[in-house]
Amino acid sequence: MEDVLSVDPRTGQATEVVTQKTSPAELEQRCKEALEAAPTLDRLGRTGRATLLEALAGALEAHRDDIVTVADRETGLGATRLNGELTRTCYQLRLFGEVVREGSYLEATIDHAGDTPMGPRPDLRRMLVPLGPVAVFGASNFPLAFSVPGGDTASALAAGCPVVVKAHSAHPATAQLCFEVMTEAAAKAGAPSGTLGIVHGQAAGGALVAHPAIRAVGFTGSQGGGRALLRIIEQRPDPIPFFGELSSLNPVVVTPQATRERPVQIGHELAGSATLGAGQFCTKPGLAFVPAGDDGDRLVEAVAAAVDELDAQVLLNAGIASSYREISAELAALPALRTAAQGRPARGAGFEAVPLLLATTAADLPAEATEECFGPLTVVARYDGTADLLAALDRMPSSLTTTVLRGEGETELPRAVTERLRGRAGRLIYDGYPTGVAVAWAQHHGGPWPSTNSQHTSVGATAIRRFLRPLTWQNAPPDLLPAELADDYRGIPRRIDGVLVLP
Amino acid sequence: MEDVLSVDPRTGQATEVVTQKTSPAELEQRCKEALEAAPTLDRLGRTGRATLLEALAGALEAHRDDIVTVADRETGLGATRLNGELTRTCYQLRLFGEVVREGSYLEATIDHAGDTPMGPRPDLRRMLVPLGPVAVFGASNFPLAFSVPGGDTASALAAGCPVVVKAHSAHPATAQLCFEVMTEAAAKAGAPSGTLGIVHGQAAGGALVAHPAIRAVGFTGSQGGGRALLRIIEQRPDPIPFFGELSSLNPVVVTPQATRERPVQIGHELAGSATLGAGQFCTKPGLAFVPAGDDGDRLVEAVAAAVDELDAQVLLNAGIASSYREISAELAALPALRTAAQGRPARGAGFEAVPLLLATTAADLPAEATEECFGPLTVVARYDGTADLLAALDRMPSSLTTTVLRGEGETELPRAVTERLRGRAGRLIYDGYPTGVAVAWAQHHGGPWPSTNSQHTSVGATAIRRFLRPLTWQNAPPDLLPAELADDYRGIPRRIDGVLVLP
Repeated sequence: MEDVLSVDPRTGQATEVVTQKTSPAELEQRCKEALEAAPTLDRLGRTGRATLLEALAGALEAHRDDIVTVADRETGLGATRLNGELTRTCYQLRLFGEVVREGSYLEATIDHAGDTPMGPRPDLRRMLVPLGPVAVFGASNFPLAFSVPGGDTASALAAGCPVVVKAHSAHPATAQLCFEVMTEAAAKAGAPSGTLGIVHGQAAGGALVAHPAIRAVGFTGSQGGGRALLRIIEQRPDPIPFFGELSSLNPVVVTPQATRERPVQIGHELAGSATLGAGQFCTKPGLAFVPAGDDGDRLVEAVAAAVDELDAQVLLNAGIASSYREISAELAALPALRTAAQGRPARGAGFEAVPLLLATTAADLPAEATEECFGPLTVVARYDGTADLLAALDRMPSSLTTTVLRGEGETELPRAVTERLRGRAGRLIYDGYPTGVAVAWAQHHGGPWPSTNSQHTSVGATAIRRFLRPLTWQNAPPDLLPAELADDYRGIPRRIDGVLVLP
Repeated sequence: MEDVLSVDPRTGQATEVVTQKTSPAELEQRCKEALEAAPTLDRLGRTGRATLLEALAGALEAHRDDIVTVADRETGLGATRLNGELTRTCYQLRLFGEVVREGSYLEATIDHAGDTPMGPRPDLRRMLVPLGPVAVFGASNFPLAFSVPGGDTASALAAGCPVVVKAHSAHPATAQLCFEVMTEAAAKAGAPSGTLGIVHGQAAGGALVAHPAIRAVGFTGSQGGGRALLRIIEQRPDPIPFFGELSSLNPVVVTPQATRERPVQIGHELAGSATLGAGQFCTKPGLAFVPAGDDGDRLVEAVAAAVDELDAQVLLNAGIASSYREISAELAALPALRTAAQGRPARGAGFEAVPLLLATTAADLPAEATEECFGPLTVVARYDGTADLLAALDRMPSSLTTTVLRGEGETELPRAVTERLRGRAGRLIYDGYPTGVAVAWAQHHGGPWPSTNSQHTSVGATAIRRFLRPLTWQNAPPDLLPAELADDYRGIPRRIDGVLVLP
C-alpha cells in the first residue's frame, strides 16, 4: 500500500494522506462495477440521465465552499478562479442535460424499406448508442473542469457511459471529495452503483487503459503522457478510441493597424491572458506576432511592464515547476531569444515560477519557441511586413486556437492570416484572447495533432459524440427498437427517409 | 522500375503490364498535387462538389462495359455482380451529392454573443471543414465499391478532401482505368488537377501514409494490414486519423422457432449468403448458431446440400487463395470441428477454393472458429437450449453485423440475443442476411474492434464525417465567415442559439 498525499503547492509540503494508491484488485472491482452499471445507465434513458446530470450540478454547488477550499489548498489557483471553474462545470452538466433531452445528438435516422436504383432496400434505423465504460484522466490544471467533475465525465455520463476517473496526483483530495459528493448525488438520482468510479496512482491509470471493460479514454494532459497511453492502447487485443487533448501553442497575430490603434491595451491584455492561472491554460497564448517599428515597440513595452510587475506564480506541482524552470532557462539561453521582461523572483519554498517574456524576430524564431511551454512564459516575435509574417506562420504547428487582433474594420490581413492558419487551428478568434473557452453548442476545443488526436471536441455540446457509436437496426420488429426509432415517436429531431423532421 | 501486372485469377496468369510501381519522386508529386488541390476543392463549395460527384457517377456509367470487362478479368467476380457493384457506386456518388446539397452534414451551429451563468459568451460559430488530402486504400474484394471509385473516395471528395488512392494489387488495371475515367470527368466538372491521384505498389502505400501532406487514411482490408498502417501512423510526428474496416465474423443466430418453421429455406439462404462472391464479403456470415435436434438437423442438411453442389470458386488473388487453403485446412483438422460438406474440387490452375461447411457444438466451439476466414467457408455451431446459446454468444468478438433469424412473431429469444450482442455489432439484422449493405442515410457499416477501429461508418451518408473536423469562429467579422455561417443564410439546417432551424 502506498500513500496518496495531498501537497500544498504554496509550501511544497504534504498536508494529508488522502487515501492509498489503487491496488490491482481494487482496479478490477472498479472496472467490474462500471461494466455492470453500463446497461442500467443506458436504460435510465435520456430523461433519467438529464436528471442525473442536473443532480450532479446541484450537489457540487451545495458543497461549493468545501470543494473550493480543498482545491485552492491543493492547486494554489485561488478561490475566485476555482469558484468560476465550478460554476462552469455545473453549467456544462446542465447544458448536457438540455442536450440529452433535446435528443439531436442521437442522430436518429429512419429509412423505410423501399426500392432504389440499387434494388430493394430493407428497413434501416440508425442512432448513436453508448460505448460502455470510459476512463477519464483528470488534468492537473483544471481540478474542477477537467477532472472528476468536468467535460469528459459529463460527456460520458450524458452519452450513457459509466466513468472511472484516474485522479490527478496534483489534487487527489479535491478529486476524492468531488467523487464522494457526486457518487452520493448519483445514487439519489437513481443511477446504478458503478456509474462513477475513481482510481489513484500512475500504475492504476495504465492498468485502467489496458482493462477489457474500458471502451474509450478521455485524456487532457501532455503530449508525452498521451503518447504513453496510446502505446498501452495499441497493445490491447482490441485497441479502443482515445481522445487526447495534448499540447497547444495558440499563436496570436497583432496586425499593424491594431498595433497602431491600441498598443498599450493589447499589451496589457496579452500579458494577462498569457499569465492567467500562472500560464497553465491549454489555450495560453504562447507566441505573439507583433509588427516591427515604434507602435510594436510600445505594445511590447506594455507587455513587458505588466510582466515585470508580476510576482512569482505558484505552479500546480513539483514536476510542472521543475519542467518550467528547465524549459524557460533553455529558451532564455537561445541566442535568438532575448529576455524582454521577467516577474519578481520566487520568495517561498513552494512551486514558484518567475513569469517570463522572451522576444525575437519572426525570421529568427527558433523551432523550440513553437512548442508549448506550460507556465507563465510567452514569446513575442516581431515581423517586418506581411510576407515576413506569413512565412513565419507557415512554421506554426497545429493549435487549439489561432487569434487575430485587428484594427477597426480591418479584413484584408486578417483574411490572409486566417487562410494561412485555419488548417492548423480548431478555433479562430478575432479581437479576443484564447484563454476562456465558453461552454456552448458552437464551441470547439480541439484541433489537429498535437492539439488533439481526434476530430472531436472536449468542450461544448458535441463533446458527447466522443463516447457514442452508431448502431443500425435492419428490419427490426417494432418491439425490439429503442423508443427513439419507433415510427410514431415524436420527441426528438429525426431524419426520416432522407428528410430532417423536427418534433 | 518494377512492373505492375494484371493477373487473371481464373488462370493465375499475368495478362498485361498495367504500369510501373510508383517511385518516391512520383509519390512526392502526387502528394504535392493533392495538397495544392485542397483549398480549390474546398472553395468549389457544396454545389460545385455535388456536381463533381454526379459527374463522376455519369462518367463511370458511360464506361460501364469497359470497366466491368476489365474488372471481371482481374477479379473473376462475374459481370452480374460487377455491374451491380458499379450501379451501387454510382448511386452512392449521387446520394453524397444530395447529402452535400442538403448541408446538415456541416453541423452548422451559431451561438450569438450573450450572457450566461458563466459570464458573457462571445459570438461562436461552428461547422465542419475538410481535413485535407486523404489516402484511400483500395480493397481486393470490391474493385468498384471500395477501390478507386467507392465509399472512401466518394466520402472524401464530398467532404472536400483530395484523394490519393493506393491501388490494390489484385486489380491494378481496373484501378487505373477507373482513375483515368474519373480524372477526366473531374477536370470537366471544374475540379482542380490533383483532386484524384493514384499510386501503385506496397512501398508507395507505406510512404503515402507517412507523407506530411496526407491528413487521414481510409482503409478496407485485413486486421494485419490495418495494424501495419497504424504503426506507420504512430511513427509520424503528427499521427493522423485512420479509418480501418478490418475483420468481421458476422454471427447468425437461428432461433428454434425459425428452425421449426423454415429449416430448408434458411439452410439454402445461409449457404447462399456465406458463399456469395466466393465468401469474400466483409459481411459474410462466418458462424451460424443452429439448435440441436431434428429441425436443426434438417436446416444443416439443407446448408450442406447446397455447399456440396457448389463448384470450386475463384478467389481474388494468389495470397487470398493460399491463405484460405491454409486456414480452412487448419480449421478442418481441429478435433472440435467436423467437415459437414464441401464443394467440388478445383479443376484449373487459377486461384480456386473449395467451399466448406464445418460443424461443431456451441459448447465446443473453438476460438479459432470465431475469427474471420476470408473465403467460402462457414461454421455451424449447434446449441442446446437458450443458456447454451447465450453462453456461446458471450465468446463472440465484435462484428460489423449480428443476425437473428426469428420465427413468425417471435420476440423473446431475439430480444435476449440482441441484448447480448448489441455491444458487439454495428448492425443488427432480423430475418435477413448480412451480405448486402444498402447505401442509405441510416446505414452503419462499422463496429468495435476488430470490425473497425473507429466510431464511424464507411458506407452510407454519414461516412462523410470521417474526413471532416470541426472549426469554430469566435467573434469573426462577417466578411471572414463561410457563407453557411452568415446570419442571413437560409440554405441548410442549422442550430441557432441552441435551436435546430430548418431552411
